[in-house]
Amino acid sequence: MHPFQQYCRDELDRMKTEGRYRSFAALTKSRRGFPRYTDAGGREITVWSSNDYLGLGGSDVLAEAARQAIEAHGVGSGGTRNISGNTPAHEALERELALLHGKEAALVFTSGYVANQAALGTILASMGGNWQVFSDEKNHNSMIAGMKNARAKSIFRHNDVAHLEELLAAADPAVNKLVAFESVYSMDGDIGPLAELAAVCRRHGALSYLDEVHAVGMYGATGAGVAERDGVSDQIDIIQGTLAKAFGCHGGYVAARAEVIDYLRSAAAGFIFTTSLPPALAAAALASVRHVKGATALRARHAERAARLKAAFREVGVEPMPSVSHIVPVPVGDAALCREVSRLLLEEHGLYVTPINYPTVPRGTERLRFTPTPRHEDADIERVAQAVAHVLRQVGLLRADAA
Amino acid sequence: MHPFQQYCRDELDRMKTEGRYRSFAALTKSRRGFPRYTDAGGREITVWSSNDYLGLGGSDVLAEAARQAIEAHGVGSGGTRNISGNTPAHEALERELALLHGKEAALVFTSGYVANQAALGTILASMGGNWQVFSDEKNHNSMIAGMKNARAKSIFRHNDVAHLEELLAAADPAVNKLVAFESVYSMDGDIGPLAELAAVCRRHGALSYLDEVHAVGMYGATGAGVAERDGVSDQIDIIQGTLAKAFGCHGGYVAARAEVIDYLRSAAAGFIFTTSLPPALAAAALASVRHVKGATALRARHAERAARLKAAFREVGVEPMPSVSHIVPVPVGDAALCREVSRLLLEEHGLYVTPINYPTVPRGTERLRFTPTPRHEDADIERVAQAVAHVLRQVGLLRADAA
Ligand SMILES: Cc1ncc(COP(=O)(O)O)c(C=O)c1O
Ligand SMILES: Cc1ncc(COP(=O)(O)O)c(C=O)c1O
Repeated sequence: MHPFQQYCRDELDRMKTEGRYRSFAALTKSRRGFPRYTDAGGREITVWSSNDYLGLGGSDVLAEAARQAIEAHGVGSGGTRNISGNTPAHEALERELALLHGKEAALVFTSGYVANQAALGTILASMGGNWQVFSDEKNHNSMIAGMKNARAKSIFRHNDVAHLEELLAAADPAVNKLVAFESVYSMDGDIGPLAELAAVCRRHGALSYLDEVHAVGMYGATGAGVAERDGVSDQIDIIQGTLAKAFGCHGGYVAARAEVIDYLRSAAAGFIFTTSLPPALAAAALASVRHVKGATALRARHAERAARLKAAFREVGVEPMPSVSHIVPVPVGDAALCREVSRLLLEEHGLYVTPINYPTVPRGTERLRFTPTPRHEDADIERVAQAVAHVLRQVGLLRADAA
Repeated sequence: MHPFQQYCRDELDRMKTEGRYRSFAALTKSRRGFPRYTDAGGREITVWSSNDYLGLGGSDVLAEAARQAIEAHGVGSGGTRNISGNTPAHEALERELALLHGKEAALVFTSGYVANQAALGTILASMGGNWQVFSDEKNHNSMIAGMKNARAKSIFRHNDVAHLEELLAAADPAVNKLVAFESVYSMDGDIGPLAELAAVCRRHGALSYLDEVHAVGMYGATGAGVAERDGVSDQIDIIQGTLAKAFGCHGGYVAARAEVIDYLRSAAAGFIFTTSLPPALAAAALASVRHVKGATALRARHAERAARLKAAFREVGVEPMPSVSHIVPVPVGDAALCREVSRLLLEEHGLYVTPINYPTVPRGTERLRFTPTPRHEDADIERVAQAVAHVLRQVGLLRADAA
């Protein structure tokens, strides 16, 4: 046996001991029934942990676009963008995304993860690598992956504009600067102060890079994200997003000035050396982005559902973490307990909510993360609040007399 | 203007001056008409550069599976594998891929690129980073990306087993070793000596990592690749492949021992922190892998078409590079000329073949890369050979009296 095999066994054992070994629930998504799924035994489960935030993945808008494109073009694209994998749908999607964010151009990657990793990695390798990157301490793993090989890195305290400014002021004036942050932070549900962050970047001549993965489709008048809502899209140099969450599809992208996009298109290895998205996904994403632009009522209902869920939890004595977004995390604070609460909710109540453990969040901050969608009804909200309170009492995390 | 913008402009200008600025042909893939595509003006183009090697992307097998899955489950998966994005189709696909390669388990990633980058990156970061990696000098960019942060790296001459052995023998016995190589090298069409490579790895206790991206579906009795054809699947520790080429779909994977796969599943950031493949792609890939297993006649025709194209080129005086696979590269040796030949073939002959320039291949080895599929008929082969000879004469790359 190669020592690596033994290493794998030991590490897996350690994860099990620490209660953070992950087993994936096998859940079948129902197109029309969303957020109802079925489990392996055929039982109906109400899912509270989907990032199909608006429930659009199963909509006729996307399904029809995808079906038509499959009928016309088949499934795989059959090539990289350069090697016969560039279709009019890819180009139209990129134009639409540029338009959405008020940028000159956009570039589609095979995922939001790859978009961050490849775009940041390529930028920070440019200009002879003469870059210093300033990264919010809660940035997503995909951004961290993209900044891994940056020559100089500074981490600023989460959403702390003064701290960022301090670090920028102390940096070598001759080095190129890039500041990376998110709008909606998906594990806490808080939102970055985009206007202040952008202003600080401008003052110090730093390029600003914003991940709107958990905001696109849901915030702003046309669903372009928090930068649109806050009126600062034009103050941010590079906006990154995903097609796989509120847009209900798959893939990721960046939007920026034309020459920046053209450079990434020409130089980013993670864009060049991989098969392009299936044409049907490009077509479905395009249909989704266009549809979502005008979906104001859907966005309003989404926000209302989140507020209602937070209120429902409080009514039963469960205090969610202080989220200002559609994400509703409930703290647990221990990996094994977190998995246990999730298991009880699934087995005894037919409700699925993912336990969020290390490495997704720091140890000691384990939580359940609820994402109400416009498709969750009043009765669903009532039921989940009651069930969560019940299970938290059961495992001793909530006083028996609470609420 | 931020200095990065100026940098982008300068770099793009330089690419243009050097003739290696890429503009993507916008080609619409026709499901039933493959390998006929249509260009922006609606003209029919015969494509000779698709990596949908068997022409299955448009088959009813894949289209039906995808359509049914879309009808049942919608488009996007709506979550990471851990956060409600794990469906029975993903699990069934992984079991099928493990079976295909004769391994205990397999893990699906969002692309073959991500599979290489994430799997190699995760392995080489394990065991305290105490690894030395041995990499074939022609390895694909995605493997290079995965080995970027390896503590020690040795490059062995392309397919040179003696050189690899020399490097392994000289390495510190206390360091863990991994050897990475491909079976079919996609730009040259040559094939690695897998049995010898595997034997050398065994002798030196090195983990062997094989990229079969350009071989799966096409080589071996059940399409498991060159390792199957050569009877050495069980001699290779980790086999990586894509669902996006011969399988006609999208996504990538690795197959290996159970604990290795379970460790990657639990530790690889590029697997954990990204939305899982749409269920419809998992379903289509599963249908494809099952179908391709028994598609012996299709594989035979594919090989015959490649041989016929090589012969047709030689008959008109065009000497392809010495490929032993289905890939038929024709040397040009200059980026601008390469683009010009491709342009003339497209505009004057309605034939599309991608110019392959730096950084995909080293400067000075620019080429046209033809990939005949079972769907290319005799008349297509005749026509492309004549047209290529004609254009090469036109640009002065072939003597006027050749053939
Ligand atoms: C902040 C953030 N950025 C990027 C990503 C990656 O996006 P995708 O799922 O499209 O790969 C995620 C999660 O998946 C995320 O949470
Ligand atoms: C050798 C090799 N490995 C991996 C990949 C990446 O596979 P995918 O297109 O599925 O990302 C490619 C090309 O695309 C390749 O040529």
